[in-house]
Amino acid sequence: MTAPAPGLDDVRARTFPFPKRHFISAGDLNRLQALELLDLADGFVALNRQKAKKLDLLKGRTLMNLFFENSTRTQSSFELAGKRLGADVVNMSPRSSSMSKGETLIDTAVTLNAMRPDLLVVRHASSGAASLLAQKVDGCVINAGDGQHEHPTQSLLDALSMRRAFGQVEGLTVAICGDVAHSRVARSNVILLQTLGARVRLVGPATLMPAGADRWGASVFHDLAEGIKGVDVVMMLRLQLERMTGSLVPSTREYFRYFGLDRAKLAHAAPHARVMHPGPMNRGVEIDSDIADDLSVSLIQDQVEMGVAVRMAILTSLAARLDNA
Amino acid sequence: MTAPAPGLDDVRARTFPFPKRHFISAGDLNRLQALELLDLADGFVALNRQKAKKLDLLKGRTLMNLFFENSTRTQSSFELAGKRLGADVVNMSPRSSSMSKGETLIDTAVTLNAMRPDLLVVRHASSGAASLLAQKVDGCVINAGDGQHEHPTQSLLDALSMRRAFGQVEGLTVAICGDVAHSRVARSNVILLQTLGARVRLVGPATLMPAGADRWGASVFHDLAEGIKGVDVVMMLRLQLERMTGSLVPSTREYFRYFGLDRAKLAHAAPHARVMHPGPMNRGVEIDSDIADDLSVSLIQDQVEMGVAVRMAILTSLAARLDNA
Amino acid sequence: MTAPAPGLDDVRARTFPFPKRHFISAGDLNRLQALELLDLADGFVALNRQKAKKLDLLKGRTLMNLFFENSTRTQSSFELAGKRLGADVVNMSPRSSSMSKGETLIDTAVTLNAMRPDLLVVRHASSGAASLLAQKVDGCVINAGDGQHEHPTQSLLDALSMRRAFGQVEGLTVAICGDVAHSRVARSNVILLQTLGARVRLVGPATLMPAGADRWGASVFHDLAEGIKGVDVVMMLRLQLERMTGSLVPSTREYFRYFGLDRAKLAHAAPHARVMHPGPMNRGVEIDSDIADDLSVSLIQDQVEMGVAVRMAILTSLAARLDNA
Repeated sequence: MTAPAPGLDDVRARTFPFPKRHFISAGDLNRLQALELLDLADGFVALNRQKAKKLDLLKGRTLMNLFFENSTRTQSSFELAGKRLGADVVNMSPRSSSMSKGETLIDTAVTLNAMRPDLLVVRHASSGAASLLAQKVDGCVINAGDGQHEHPTQSLLDALSMRRAFGQVEGLTVAICGDVAHSRVARSNVILLQTLGARVRLVGPATLMPAGADRWGASVFHDLAEGIKGVDVVMMLRLQLERMTGSLVPSTREYFRYFGLDRAKLAHAAPHARVMHPGPMNRGVEIDSDIADDLSVSLIQDQVEMGVAVRMAILTSLAARLDNA
Repeated sequence: MTAPAPGLDDVRARTFPFPKRHFISAGDLNRLQALELLDLADGFVALNRQKAKKLDLLKGRTLMNLFFENSTRTQSSFELAGKRLGADVVNMSPRSSSMSKGETLIDTAVTLNAMRPDLLVVRHASSGAASLLAQKVDGCVINAGDGQHEHPTQSLLDALSMRRAFGQVEGLTVAICGDVAHSRVARSNVILLQTLGARVRLVGPATLMPAGADRWGASVFHDLAEGIKGVDVVMMLRLQLERMTGSLVPSTREYFRYFGLDRAKLAHAAPHARVMHPGPMNRGVEIDSDIADDLSVSLIQDQVEMGVAVRMAILTSLAARLDNA
Repeated sequence: MTAPAPGLDDVRARTFPFPKRHFISAGDLNRLQALELLDLADGFVALNRQKAKKLDLLKGRTLMNLFFENSTRTQSSFELAGKRLGADVVNMSPRSSSMSKGETLIDTAVTLNAMRPDLLVVRHASSGAASLLAQKVDGCVINAGDGQHEHPTQSLLDALSMRRAFGQVEGLTVAICGDVAHSRVARSNVILLQTLGARVRLVGPATLMPAGADRWGASVFHDLAEGIKGVDVVMMLRLQLERMTGSLVPSTREYFRYFGLDRAKLAHAAPHARVMHPGPMNRGVEIDSDIADDLSVSLIQDQVEMGVAVRMAILTSLAARLDNA
């Protein structure tokens, strides 16, 4: 499972200019481009398992992490990716700063842009925020989650985890289960998985299924056992805390009974099926600890590891495009 | 407008030891010294526009960012400046830490000093805090704003923005407008602009004008149109949120009507006049969006860009002095 | 007092693999190992006093600072130690993040581990947290304080401060005074000081003395004057704010009267006695400013300086063990 760790020459040879200036949507990549990114990321996985996890591919580059929503996990993943590539990394959490008071997103963008970041990673509660920002800056914007819209790097790390587990993503059947309606993870995965030739199912209660789900090219199920029947991958989504007390879910206990994944329900999937979750997990709500912690079934730790590698591939590739510009 | 980017030799040749151990007040610089810093900063502007924005002038040095008041913008500017020069940068926000509970500013200073920082950037709500700290540490203290006293690096970046727009600061007429009484930006600008040979006007309602303003060497106006008549630069100050609801300003709507800068009022300035603001802006309070976003008039983005370059010049220059000590 | 600053070769020669994979307790070190760490740390003290405070011993290594409890002082000390050794350092404060919501400590550990940190510094409010984490990760865990259990790096920096003041720790008599019951600093110091051959006394009101204190190998005193009589070192503990208003202490004024260290009480110690405090201090509660600020008596600043050096020694030594693994 471990490719030989890449030297600088090796990575340089595999690096290709990102197809667009920004990475806003999983739809920014065609199949070939996505596969090339996964190949590049495979090399970084090997690098990250070494003692010396540092290259100078982004030396002299500035990466800004701009997280309007808190996320230790995703922010650290990008921070590590940038630092291991030799970039100067600056973290900003404008929610807690004066920047958020009375200053618009555009003002923030224009201000940051003047500091000449090459790479700008953005998470924001509003769908479309990353795209809006991209119009105002000279560097590359990477969407690290914008409202209920997209989280494209998550879908790439999910694809890499699946590819390393099954050899290829093409031909897999993947059930995305839970709060599909409010999930940017689901949206980006539906797009990328179909680009890569997987079959996608959406599984969840009707109250948590988006209105036009039938037009997403995926089959829709409202029963978990039926929805995951024979699938290769069961991807559980996080039930946001704010949904748990709202009118969409009767109670977390009810939710777990019908849509939480436990050993008995998992038996409906293919015998070799693997379980994924973008984290952080609500144990006993959408997933049982018994499954989450079973490394023969769960890919959850792999997903985190692949996250750093995929982000290194994306940053390298975007910076290579900047060189050409 | 773009000078050739400096190599290491180039910057080393232009670098001179800062005239004092600390940079507390705009008054720490005489005219020649200020101009030399602006020359050095010009080189860093060019560097920051390159792909490779990194030098090793401060390699092995430790820069501590000690922000008792939150400021994403200024803190990031210093952080980037330090990192691009190769320093190890540590950010601290003692407001949210145990350090602020029951420990005095002096204790904090003495504690940090024991960690051997070479450069200590300080923002604090109390006037005089930076100066107090400077007496207790071995490294260089840079005042990044102390209460209503001074914000000297802001005045230098403002001067650089003006010089790049007009060729020189000498002979310019600059109107500083708004809440002069509570503004450290105004204080530092009045000092540095006069050092550089500009004429300064202070414009604002009587309630927001400091008691001895007539002794600052600047002319004082209480009418915006009259105050900015024929000036080269209109520098708008931020109206702090806490002033808006107090007794000093009737309402933000009233404030904008009389002291907010819009296109009609700006017509009183010279035809070639440029508008500045230290940010973050209260759009529709002290400045109209129409002007803030007009790049043919506004220098606001330049100010942010010059901020990083000016701070690189100051850090380099202070560290050069440490070498001699 | 200043050893010559070590070159890379010098430090490499002195570096030895840490005796265990993790550093959880002061009891992880025997006397020889503790002394070797202090020798290595002495070299880093000299390095940190130089202009160029940077080595590349940990280049390519990833250090994660995982502070569930806020501590600007300790976190910065580890951050600086890692950066000066060339490591990539990532700070996390899971208290304020989504990671703390609905995710267990184990989930956090497993998640972080997947990002492949080599060194994981942990502070947590629960005794045993560092040890629990150590079972779940591949890198080295350094306990930066776990509940009321231990804070082993503090005891090493205290030992280094004493050794530099007195020449050796062996044979010293050290009185640890104040809230012994709730102090992880006290626990680690009792262990390490006895390992190093010092005699330890525990001094404090009965309400702040742990139940089995008599089994710690230290003599127990309930009167400060008596307890510090003739000692070489008086180590004052911080009285946590939450104790001050509880039932354990009548009032801070009363506490100071009986257990606060002032000049009069200090007269009972040996004439050459030195005073220590792990900080941050409550001036006028457990210690009088007059003593805290008297550099002929207080080692408090030395403790902070030794902190960075000791942590550099521990990180270097732990990483050397990873190489062998």
